[in-house]
Amino acid sequence: MERVERWGMFEAAVEGSAVGNPFTDASVRGIFTHGHRSVAVDGFYDGGGVYRVRFMPDAEGEWSYRIVPSGTEAGEAEGRFTCVPPGAGNHGPVRVSGRTRFRYEDGTPYCPVGTTCYVWNHQGDALETKTLETLSTSPFSKIRMCVFPKHYDFNRNEPEFYPFEGKPLTEWDFTRFDPRYFRHLERRITDLMSIGIEADLILFHPYDRWGFSKMDAAADDRYLRYITARLSAFRNVWWSFANEFDLMDSKREADWDRYFKLVQEQDHVQHLRSVHNCRGFYDHRKPWVTHCSIQHSDLSQVSRWIDEYGKPVVVDECRYEGNIHHGWGNITALEMVNKFWEGFARGGFVGHGETYVHPDDILWWSHGGTLHGESPQRIAFLRGIVEAAPPDGIGRIPVRWDQAGGGTPGRYYLYYTGNSQSANKFYDLPDDVRFHADIIDAWEMTVTRVPGTHSGRVRIDLPGKPYIAVRFTAAG
Amino acid sequence: MERVERWGMFEAAVEGSAVGNPFTDASVRGIFTHGHRSVAVDGFYDGGGVYRVRFMPDAEGEWSYRIVPSGTEAGEAEGRFTCVPPGAGNHGPVRVSGRTRFRYEDGTPYCPVGTTCYVWNHQGDALETKTLETLSTSPFSKIRMCVFPKHYDFNRNEPEFYPFEGKPLTEWDFTRFDPRYFRHLERRITDLMSIGIEADLILFHPYDRWGFSKMDAAADDRYLRYITARLSAFRNVWWSFANEFDLMDSKREADWDRYFKLVQEQDHVQHLRSVHNCRGFYDHRKPWVTHCSIQHSDLSQVSRWIDEYGKPVVVDECRYEGNIHHGWGNITALEMVNKFWEGFARGGFVGHGETYVHPDDILWWSHGGTLHGESPQRIAFLRGIVEAAPPDGIGRIPVRWDQAGGGTPGRYYLYYTGNSQSANKFYDLPDDVRFHADIIDAWEMTVTRVPGTHSGRVRIDLPGKPYIAVRFTAAG
Repeated sequence: MERVERWGMFEAAVEGSAVGNPFTDASVRGIFTHGHRSVAVDGFYDGGGVYRVRFMPDAEGEWSYRIVPSGTEAGEAEGRFTCVPPGAGNHGPVRVSGRTRFRYEDGTPYCPVGTTCYVWNHQGDALETKTLETLSTSPFSKIRMCVFPKHYDFNRNEPEFYPFEGKPLTEWDFTRFDPRYFRHLERRITDLMSIGIEADLILFHPYDRWGFSKMDAAADDRYLRYITARLSAFRNVWWSFANEFDLMDSKREADWDRYFKLVQEQDHVQHLRSVHNCRGFYDHRKPWVTHCSIQHSDLSQVSRWIDEYGKPVVVDECRYEGNIHHGWGNITALEMVNKFWEGFARGGFVGHGETYVHPDDILWWSHGGTLHGESPQRIAFLRGIVEAAPPDGIGRIPVRWDQAGGGTPGRYYLYYTGNSQSANKFYDLPDDVRFHADIIDAWEMTVTRVPGTHSGRVRIDLPGKPYIAVRFTAAG
Repeated sequence: MERVERWGMFEAAVEGSAVGNPFTDASVRGIFTHGHRSVAVDGFYDGGGVYRVRFMPDAEGEWSYRIVPSGTEAGEAEGRFTCVPPGAGNHGPVRVSGRTRFRYEDGTPYCPVGTTCYVWNHQGDALETKTLETLSTSPFSKIRMCVFPKHYDFNRNEPEFYPFEGKPLTEWDFTRFDPRYFRHLERRITDLMSIGIEADLILFHPYDRWGFSKMDAAADDRYLRYITARLSAFRNVWWSFANEFDLMDSKREADWDRYFKLVQEQDHVQHLRSVHNCRGFYDHRKPWVTHCSIQHSDLSQVSRWIDEYGKPVVVDECRYEGNIHHGWGNITALEMVNKFWEGFARGGFVGHGETYVHPDDILWWSHGGTLHGESPQRIAFLRGIVEAAPPDGIGRIPVRWDQAGGGTPGRYYLYYTGNSQSANKFYDLPDDVRFHADIIDAWEMTVTRVPGTHSGRVRIDLPGKPYIAVRFTAAG
């Protein structure tokens, strides 16, 4: 009997007819049963008369299934498989943990340290392979990437495939998908999975010369059903409904609500769902939003967003390290690192991007390739600090206006001074707990233990330079 | 006949009785006449039976006057003096010029480059003399200073004199002033005048252990009349009704309105009037406010404040260069300079302060003394850049969100990139004017001319580092 890892992918296919338009005339569904529980999953037409159903089993043991085509001449199929324990590195999909943190489904803490390479998956094999190499030794555990190709400054190349049949640039048959396009996307998602990176898939975006940002509601919904059927069984997928939803003039708030609800209904894995803004925010309180995906350059607001939304706050875009002329793409490595520390110390998560001028216009932020900046190694250092905290330990605590800080009362506190340069700071610790204190230099990547242990109101002498954090950890 | 400089001070005294309470029982008024114009000015009791009237003549030629005491046995006096042209360095009081800039009354542009030494005038002769020495070679053209002594961290010493008769700390007779206190203040204002510095006098503030912040309305008004009578004839006085008015719980908005109106009525020179906030702003649109005095650390808002208030925007406090534990007093010199550039490039004005830990707790921000920081020399450089612009030349112009900028369309533009590090930037200049372009390094204090002249949409290659300004000046 076929064996499938827990949180791996089971795929069944039936052969049917390729005549007419199988994308709209036919459909296929799988019903997967484990004990008394049954899960129904919509499949998809993959071209050449083949209909597939993909399923991610979440429980070990024997599963049975039935594949039920309709609207095509294919007959039903059925079978069984055994779900076995997950292999090394497979912790399941990422879930929200508590109110504002993340864990994999197996309970392992997950820290989203994101980067953005919007269309790295449309750059041809050589560059895409290079990007994967770079990512594999990077600090990043999440990547933002688009399903559709991108039209923007530095982004004028055509993709190898298109998502729909038709004639470029604008004569598309939105009722017919090109499976090659999606197979390539799936290959890259699998590549990311193999190096432990979550694919934060951007489903819509405004930077478009092909018309994919201006399809009608029926086409949008068909596209979402198709991609949900193809991709839900990949455990490292997140749904990001848009990059900069508020720049897409042809969509209304009700459209975004509908997309969320449709995907929530279709996705048998219930992957994370968010939508990313340019200026004004979507209402992240809406029940189908799992976490806040935010573009904003003021990380001091992370504390307020956590309070207001009660969900994990991921500032996916806060300007990028680089030197292009655009204001969002020209901050220093120092400022990128500073923003990371401010956001993480406040109990949020921050995303990286890189936009250095390149002779061939290969900018990491869109194309991937190689990292040129000085922030990634500091981000790796920060990730180590965050992952060394108690699980879910950097929670919301009261902090004075002039510091970023997070922690778990009585157990762990992390304070960050930003670009101020105090020679000393006072901290109010519990009287009845002894703490170790460490002074952390965010840029130099050093951790220096302060002698002794500390309780109550303490004065900590600091190096008198910016970008310093102070960490208190309960002793013993 | 006595000769008085235009915008100098004429003072007349009459001798009367010192019995009873001359501060409340008696009064004195001067009527000064130049041609058909007469100006009435309230005088003040200066102790020892002497009643004085001070007057600042604003027109050259012969003036006559009458001094009219009442409630005391002194008789009227009268006389004449000649108002002669101002001496070197005397440009008259500072006025608002256009909507958002300043000039002296003689038309000379005035650029407020402020610093803060709240109670430098209560530190004894040695330190006060040192402060004046420091100021005389500093870039500063304005100083914020308190009339009343200050109680706060690092500020625990008693002043040599007190403004009222009574017993320290809290048994004051608010109906009797101590003239020695005010004579000392006047001496220091004169010292500042002699080195070309405007005294931005803070009339009330909340940092108080003596009760001067919690006097009743009658005492407040008496104090304002007294200080207006004593000080209005000093041409370098500005009225700052409070430091952090919103932290003075015993005052209501109506009190601040009343103070403004009272001083506006009493001050025959019509010195500049403002009030400084901690958090929320007083409504600077009110007609008696001449300019916005703002505490805020986000200088990017200067453009918005200029638009909203239509008055000069002076950000007197945006955090101070230093390394104390307080968040408002621990920014780097680099960040202080950055804030200055951002504010000035947007057409506002920014104030300096310095709070470095000192073995004897002598911090420039409160005590004066010596400057230890690295920002003043860069502020001097910036002042030179601003003063080299056309008079009133750094006006409000449209700027993209990622840059600070100000100018005069068709003539002069100053753009500042802050902490971004673009390798190049695009600018839209008029097509029909040729401009010189200079690249200015705010920290290194260099000005580098870009070869050629520039019109229309131009790309300027930049050093790819932060804290760079680009200046366009119409050629020829």
